[in-house]
Amino acid sequence: MEAFERNIRKVEPYVPGEQPRQRVVKLNTNENPYPPAPGVERALKELDTADFRLYPDPACSVLVDAIADFYKVGRDQVFVGVGSDDVLSLCFLTFFNSDKPILFPDITYSFYKVWAQLYRIPYECKRVDEQFRIVREDYYGENGGVIFPNPNAPTALYEDLELVEDILRHNRDVIVIVDEAYIDYAGPSAVELVDRYDNLIVTQTFSKSRSMAGMRIGYAIANPKLIRYLNDVKYSFNSYTLNRASLVCGAEAVKDRAYFEETVEKIKATRERAMERLGSLGFSCTRSSANFLFATHPDCDARELFEALKREGIYVRWWDSERIRQYMRITVGTDEEMEKLFAFLEQYLSKGE
Amino acid sequence: MEAFERNIRKVEPYVPGEQPRQRVVKLNTNENPYPPAPGVERALKELDTADFRLYPDPACSVLVDAIADFYKVGRDQVFVGVGSDDVLSLCFLTFFNSDKPILFPDITYSFYKVWAQLYRIPYECKRVDEQFRIVREDYYGENGGVIFPNPNAPTALYEDLELVEDILRHNRDVIVIVDEAYIDYAGPSAVELVDRYDNLIVTQTFSKSRSMAGMRIGYAIANPKLIRYLNDVKYSFNSYTLNRASLVCGAEAVKDRAYFEETVEKIKATRERAMERLGSLGFSCTRSSANFLFATHPDCDARELFEALKREGIYVRWWDSERIRQYMRITVGTDEEMEKLFAFLEQYLSKGE
Repeated sequence: MEAFERNIRKVEPYVPGEQPRQRVVKLNTNENPYPPAPGVERALKELDTADFRLYPDPACSVLVDAIADFYKVGRDQVFVGVGSDDVLSLCFLTFFNSDKPILFPDITYSFYKVWAQLYRIPYECKRVDEQFRIVREDYYGENGGVIFPNPNAPTALYEDLELVEDILRHNRDVIVIVDEAYIDYAGPSAVELVDRYDNLIVTQTFSKSRSMAGMRIGYAIANPKLIRYLNDVKYSFNSYTLNRASLVCGAEAVKDRAYFEETVEKIKATRERAMERLGSLGFSCTRSSANFLFATHPDCDARELFEALKREGIYVRWWDSERIRQYMRITVGTDEEMEKLFAFLEQYLSKGE
Repeated sequence: MEAFERNIRKVEPYVPGEQPRQRVVKLNTNENPYPPAPGVERALKELDTADFRLYPDPACSVLVDAIADFYKVGRDQVFVGVGSDDVLSLCFLTFFNSDKPILFPDITYSFYKVWAQLYRIPYECKRVDEQFRIVREDYYGENGGVIFPNPNAPTALYEDLELVEDILRHNRDVIVIVDEAYIDYAGPSAVELVDRYDNLIVTQTFSKSRSMAGMRIGYAIANPKLIRYLNDVKYSFNSYTLNRASLVCGAEAVKDRAYFEETVEKIKATRERAMERLGSLGFSCTRSSANFLFATHPDCDARELFEALKREGIYVRWWDSERIRQYMRITVGTDEEMEKLFAFLEQYLSKGE
């Protein structure tokens, strides 16, 4: 090792889900199977590329305004970033500066641990119960902050706002982040609690229900004071984050409520049919409130099945992690894509493997 | 202050140059007065927005390949990010983890200090000399890393590669970052040194000479080992950064060498004429090697002139900072824009103010 390498920050790199280039059945990164709202195409084509020479609006007003209108919150209650990963990582940097550990579930989005390590934030993982449910009492003790996804990933389980509010009530002295990447496929959002709990931050993304993973847009909704702290750090960091294309395409995507609701309903309907079908094939799934299924089969090894699916060009997600090693995460695609999956599973299971 | 605010990271927010919405003469944020290469328009219009539902390529291959081809370096020697601010801030996080202070000039890009504070990196500013020149001996002592822009901003001064190499030779045990945001308006780039100095990182941007400030693209060129460290941190942070529009537009912009050279030459020619004209109006400018001028006038207070220009709809940049309080930074615009500036200055000066 060279001398100059001594002070380099070494991290265990996160391995993102594969992005295969050839045409495959891609059910591995929870993307939306439907295109974004039609207005996005129009907005993109109307962009004047001559304006690309100019910096984008650092306040991201056109997008912030559209999100504020959609959720009926103030413009000063919305923060936007380059995907919810950018927003969440900035939240870690801004809000988690205590000597006490932050708390999050042991089975959850794998980036939480990575950001904590990256920023040297102490953390403690709280074990979800045998049904993968968050145990509220685990979050009652002293801590440096709380974060959990709702619905949780990869378990797909949604917790009622009653539980979210209970955790908030027990944590009035720290920041509580509810990561709602999949909320549109579930129940009520904690956004309705931000005016009552000034220590609550709700994050969401355009990558799932808004069908814009390729444009990198995420946001946080909270009280104006917390949004101001986030903006202060953002402006000290990289003032111009969202580019001109993301700003106008994002605004168009969020304005089209009818299209949004229609595609969300289509995915939920496919999800329900898929859960039933997987059940009839002998799989157990958690009660999914997301755009993916978390499934295990008593007679097949999940890793072997994952590999067999991949050889067939059907990509799902599998983790070599304690407690969930026998589960696969399957994104809800179109009905046609799901049929391809089921056809293969039927054949695979009939071989008695 | 509420209890939960105790552990919030508080920063002095950087105030970006104003982005006025109305039509003004905008010479305040060093943007390119010319549109990006014609291929950018075509690439944008050919984008299939249906693909926006899918995550972008996390490796950013199409853009990395185009940059590698342009600079004749390996693909494993290029890292791209959301503007050079993103790249530089990630470099600070990755490479500056020593207990010893990092070094940079006292008059320089104001973000260096902000990132150091944000990441709690000790730092020391080294005074540039009375002509605003970097004093090489100041960088000979023990330190935790070195960063300086070349050309420096806002002084516009370019240092020969001989000085860059001398500083590199005296700092073989730490990382040295040369921030070349404005290099295309100056002399040879330190990119030619990366194969000889494995502790050197050169950063550049699409926001100036490539006319793409609105699309947020920056990059670093270094040896493959350092690029790997950067990618490890990036993947642990936010795997998908550049969106689909930035990737294809960026690749097109960098492929068009002829257009790039033509617009760079136009700006350099305008710069030379502008320096002469300012001189004839009694201003002193540093010898600019960038797309902006750093100018002072013996008979006018810079702040008053800055305010007067702003009232006239002519935006330049001024800082209330020690040593440079009597200077303005003026972006080189089109000849027409510069004429508007000169017309106002003539009138202003003739009033004897």
